[in-house]
Amino acid sequence: MPMTGTAARVEAGRLRGFTARAMLALGLPADDADSVAALMTEADLQGSEGHGVFRLPQYARRIRAGGVNTNPKIRIIEERAGMALIDGDNGMGHLVMKRAAEIAIAKARVTGIAWVGSRFSNHAGPASLYARMPLAQDMIGLYFAVGNANHLPPWGGIDMLISTNPIAAAFPGGAEPPIVLDMATTVAAYGKVKTKAQRGEAMPEGWMVDRDGRPLTDPNRSDEGFLLPLGGMEAGYKGFGLALVIGLLAGTLNGAAMGKEVIDFNNDSSSVTNTGQAIMAIDLSAFGPIESFKARLDALARDLRAARRMSGVEKISLPGDNSRAARIRNAREGIPVAPALMAELAKLAGELGIATL
Amino acid sequence: MPMTGTAARVEAGRLRGFTARAMLALGLPADDADSVAALMTEADLQGSEGHGVFRLPQYARRIRAGGVNTNPKIRIIEERAGMALIDGDNGMGHLVMKRAAEIAIAKARVTGIAWVGSRFSNHAGPASLYARMPLAQDMIGLYFAVGNANHLPPWGGIDMLISTNPIAAAFPGGAEPPIVLDMATTVAAYGKVKTKAQRGEAMPEGWMVDRDGRPLTDPNRSDEGFLLPLGGMEAGYKGFGLALVIGLLAGTLNGAAMGKEVIDFNNDSSSVTNTGQAIMAIDLSAFGPIESFKARLDALARDLRAARRMSGVEKISLPGDNSRAARIRNAREGIPVAPALMAELAKLAGELGIATL
Repeated sequence: MPMTGTAARVEAGRLRGFTARAMLALGLPADDADSVAALMTEADLQGSEGHGVFRLPQYARRIRAGGVNTNPKIRIIEERAGMALIDGDNGMGHLVMKRAAEIAIAKARVTGIAWVGSRFSNHAGPASLYARMPLAQDMIGLYFAVGNANHLPPWGGIDMLISTNPIAAAFPGGAEPPIVLDMATTVAAYGKVKTKAQRGEAMPEGWMVDRDGRPLTDPNRSDEGFLLPLGGMEAGYKGFGLALVIGLLAGTLNGAAMGKEVIDFNNDSSSVTNTGQAIMAIDLSAFGPIESFKARLDALARDLRAARRMSGVEKISLPGDNSRAARIRNAREGIPVAPALMAELAKLAGELGIATL
Repeated sequence: MPMTGTAARVEAGRLRGFTARAMLALGLPADDADSVAALMTEADLQGSEGHGVFRLPQYARRIRAGGVNTNPKIRIIEERAGMALIDGDNGMGHLVMKRAAEIAIAKARVTGIAWVGSRFSNHAGPASLYARMPLAQDMIGLYFAVGNANHLPPWGGIDMLISTNPIAAAFPGGAEPPIVLDMATTVAAYGKVKTKAQRGEAMPEGWMVDRDGRPLTDPNRSDEGFLLPLGGMEAGYKGFGLALVIGLLAGTLNGAAMGKEVIDFNNDSSSVTNTGQAIMAIDLSAFGPIESFKARLDALARDLRAARRMSGVEKISLPGDNSRAARIRNAREGIPVAPALMAELAKLAGELGIATL
């Protein structure tokens, strides 16, 4: 019985207000509670359903278990003209990455490009939230993160030592919308597995395999196998390589957790995760006239969209199209919240003594 | 009848000398001829068999057809503290990217990270050649390139508008060898298709499909289909997204060819390709003690290699292992040159009036 049909749609402002109330009650300063709520609601608006309010019960559990610092002193610990390494002091990842993006943008304005890495950060929601931040400054944004639970072994192995380490990249267009890629380096992100479990749906074959390499389709048995890296059984060594490289850039380089140091935050609410992320900003104006770049992107996007199609394909989509369509629909109709999650949020409201959603 | 069994093995120095003679005879200055020959031989040594001397007949054809400038004035046309955009003046890509890497390394020493993009460059061989260059300076190298022929359509389309745009990343280890990823964003690189054709071998299913989405295994029919992006039929939209992002960074950002502007250098020897590439250098010392990073990489690499294995898997490999093994073997036993290629090289030597291999 699919449960999605009964999902309530909640107006974005209401969801944001509820999330801010919850964060405030959990001990965050008012400004920080607002910032986190705004970014979590952005995640929901753009259809990143595994990364918005869906995570609130988990975040609350971690904060109440002492696993997250509600009053962090986020500070720069290494710095050069084109880079910074920041220590998030175990604060909410959204706050750490928002600061990282601000620093990267300010530096890129001077040096043309800039890179900011983090240690002692936490889960920050969808990668594209942060890759998109430079867009408004006519900059390209790149984002890399170490995921918060290991779901895949090295290629050929069965010990899960690598996460679904995501990459995101955002490019400003002129008349055309921005191109925004946001992808886990596995065939499916683990958030999608959790959503399937929440909805009581089976996973398609190819998302996960068990320790003998057999397809695993029951999301409630996800502990018994691992996600397949991008490329699947045939070329998954490439997806594994990408996940490793992203983890080296976002984790190892920053002195953040990587490999066996990664805390499974689905099963551990109190340990410091030492999450690592990295954001890069590339100032278009350093490469020539901004309008020339945008005109080139527009022409390319139009050529790609106008390509002849395989039979059965209705239209050619570019990265970012789905999230933009979700944003339009969710802003108008409200953000879908599944019944099970709605019940969890009501329970949380009761525990925190705040007004329900 | 497999032809690989009869491949001669040629000592690397001999191959390099021959290639340098050919480049000199084709009009390159002696220093440039040596540089190109050294990098092409490096490609062969590391087992990038589609990117070394295999390409010499094609390079010669392009140079003789006026498609490559043998005396380029490679110059910086845009510059900030952390970046440069260089115009390769249509010179050999190896020369342009060697210069790009040198500039990126020098800048990263000051700003911590640096990015150098190119326009009016050309095919430069395997991506990892350039990503590896910062390693000796205790820097991480990243490399992105627009491929020199479009082999895949946008996801769902049939017009080939995107190349196999490769990405490479190299990380220095301490006691452990460096981790070096070098991958095309397709299931297989087009160079591998060419090698299969040269050897008279069929391709495995999953490398290419025809315009109706059916598997294509005859490498001589590669014109009738396209390469599948990483992820294959199931999640190829991710591989397409990666190829697009790499093309935006290496091509569109630099004012280099991308999309329909890309010249198919397999079928066109005289048009200026306006090839775009980008290299990034990340100075480890900007992020803390270099030895700390190397110790973290070593520990991670050892953990990954020590993972328990799926049945039938003899050992866990990390990115860079295969090319290192090839280098050891090829340095000792010589570089394999297939009979068909050997005949082509003999013919080229005759045409150029140089001593044969």
